[in-house]
Amino acid sequence: MKAKVSQALLFDALQRAGRAISSNCMLPILHGFRLQFLDDRMTVTGGNEQMTIYAGLPLIEQVRRNEADSKKPGPTGLVIPARYMVDIARKLQAPLVELELEDRPILTVRSGGSTFRLCGMELEEYPEMPPLDLALWQLTVPNALLKSMIRQVAFAASTSEIRPLLSGVLCRFDGSSLRLVATDSVRFASHSSRIGPEVASAAFEAIIPGKALAELAKLLQDTQEETTITAYSGHIVFNSSDVSLSCSLLHGTYPPIDKLVPSGYTAELTADTLQLLHAMERVTLLAGEGSVVRLQTGPNTGEEQFVELLAGSAEIGNVREHIRVDHVQGEAIAVSFNGKYMTDILRAMNSSTVKLKFSEKLGPIVAEPLSPIPTSIYLLTRIRTAV
Amino acid sequence: MKAKVSQALLFDALQRAGRAISSNCMLPILHGFRLQFLDDRMTVTGGNEQMTIYAGLPLIEQVRRNEADSKKPGPTGLVIPARYMVDIARKLQAPLVELELEDRPILTVRSGGSTFRLCGMELEEYPEMPPLDLALWQLTVPNALLKSMIRQVAFAASTSEIRPLLSGVLCRFDGSSLRLVATDSVRFASHSSRIGPEVASAAFEAIIPGKALAELAKLLQDTQEETTITAYSGHIVFNSSDVSLSCSLLHGTYPPIDKLVPSGYTAELTADTLQLLHAMERVTLLAGEGSVVRLQTGPNTGEEQFVELLAGSAEIGNVREHIRVDHVQGEAIAVSFNGKYMTDILRAMNSSTVKLKFSEKLGPIVAEPLSPIPTSIYLLTRIRTAV
Repeated sequence: MKAKVSQALLFDALQRAGRAISSNCMLPILHGFRLQFLDDRMTVTGGNEQMTIYAGLPLIEQVRRNEADSKKPGPTGLVIPARYMVDIARKLQAPLVELELEDRPILTVRSGGSTFRLCGMELEEYPEMPPLDLALWQLTVPNALLKSMIRQVAFAASTSEIRPLLSGVLCRFDGSSLRLVATDSVRFASHSSRIGPEVASAAFEAIIPGKALAELAKLLQDTQEETTITAYSGHIVFNSSDVSLSCSLLHGTYPPIDKLVPSGYTAELTADTLQLLHAMERVTLLAGEGSVVRLQTGPNTGEEQFVELLAGSAEIGNVREHIRVDHVQGEAIAVSFNGKYMTDILRAMNSSTVKLKFSEKLGPIVAEPLSPIPTSIYLLTRIRTAV
Repeated sequence: MKAKVSQALLFDALQRAGRAISSNCMLPILHGFRLQFLDDRMTVTGGNEQMTIYAGLPLIEQVRRNEADSKKPGPTGLVIPARYMVDIARKLQAPLVELELEDRPILTVRSGGSTFRLCGMELEEYPEMPPLDLALWQLTVPNALLKSMIRQVAFAASTSEIRPLLSGVLCRFDGSSLRLVATDSVRFASHSSRIGPEVASAAFEAIIPGKALAELAKLLQDTQEETTITAYSGHIVFNSSDVSLSCSLLHGTYPPIDKLVPSGYTAELTADTLQLLHAMERVTLLAGEGSVVRLQTGPNTGEEQFVELLAGSAEIGNVREHIRVDHVQGEAIAVSFNGKYMTDILRAMNSSTVKLKFSEKLGPIVAEPLSPIPTSIYLLTRIRTAV
């Protein structure tokens, strides 16, 4: 079998599918790309135990099958070691690449004056994906919206193995709005977006691995295109033009996180998000290992209102940030929290102005975009300090 | 003492001096920057056991010394932990930074709404540099020429600790030409440049650590400026505007490398440097751990002449590059060598056309820029192979 492809598109497809390939993966065949040829298209597959990425590209010359191939149904192809394949595709300089597959699993790559012969493995040895027969639920979402939602929420999912369920992002559709929720039990992020009324889909709920969603946000092009999300009993598939991501779902009962939102507040303030973010980044530099940062109502002289951020240790030194806020009301504020986590929240927030709300005792700090009907809410547990 | 500086210039000076700071360094005080203030300038010093980098910047407001300071002669200053200082300078957003030094070694950094108080160490605890009293030799070289010379040669110096002398670059001035030579005993690089006749300086020879020269090439701005090289008995100082690098010299007898150049050749070829470099990079991808690449005269059909590059292993596969050359003459070529090393040589070479020369038996391969009087020469030891 012989086929011709564009060097640029081949390299792009290998890079995209390669995002799912991990050298930590226990199954050696998953250190390779599955290359499949069918009619006028080629598919590059990369995977690990949790997720699989499929990247497609058109063939410039249709597949020419030899007699033996043409008797077999389905695609022709092989599995080829990932690191060599990406490096070779990167370094080829001619615009066209010819791929030739013999009966044995050997791939010949010809381009310009180069001829590579690479030893691969049989297509059949690559793990089968679960069958895609019975779709339980389907929804189509614009790529830009999906990327933005993931970026606002997925960072808050846990990266620890202790409570695997919290490494997932809760995805809940109520028939008109899609909501993503993540928490690692110290911080909590939630965002809802109304999906156009033309979408007629049933309510649905699933827990999707946070890492897979983060990869999806990187994979999706910032175009006018859409992604179709299809859920099956044990896994979910995200399908956009030329790229698909499939991952297993997490099973269990997601904690009832909405109950954590305090019912009343003793104080609140609004500030410029970017200004607060930059001050938070600077203060966190001296906050040490525990990343403890203190926020308190500043010395408010005259008409302008200020808050202060404080951090430091006896050995290194200390820092005080003096920040003008748009508005402060309620009791005097004096709270401590993880500065890195607050930095993450301010960075993820899609709003130029942030509202911070404080409640009694050690109730969590609430951060929201300033908006008549906020669609995002972030919670951050307070740290009890001696002073 | 109080002084004001530009945030951008402060960050730049810290980054430059920071290139000499290494977390591997055994002396804890060398994990810090020495900050010195004198009149209308500030100097940032970073160092390790082998080299020291000094970066200067102007003060926007002159140093205001307090009474105690003004009684002491020499600069005022302190030593401050490097990693905090660089991160803080990076994250400050106001254009001006005020630095205040108390009697104790504490630095206060004020900028916008930020106030950092950083614990430092006394200036006197920083190691003294060797005295700069008796200069043995001095030469002034345009920055662009010095950078280009270092880039053509320094890569070939050894990175191993086994023969410390070979980690150095031999620098030899004969009164009119400056020559740099480096070898790790497998490959050898040499470049000579005539220094303008207005320079009246004696002949001189020294062995300079290759790492320090590589840092110097990165530090020097690509401007019309010049660098003054001043040698003292045990060390050498490179001085350009706003930045200086000082390093210890290596002592010993550098091997008589010119004797390695073969006296006669059995074959030679000329090729496009970039085309050969790219083919060499591709072939080296499959050359395995030993990086063994074979070059042989290709099937020359008709008027065009070709050579082939070959590499591979039974497990991974193999590669054949077919390269058109401008000219081949002499006996048939069939040599093996380290492909990574040849790639380094072709990348360092400052010429669009390369001439490769081959000698009898296992004599080294010679690579030269194609030029009537070549100013560079590279040697690469051949690898004895079974076939």
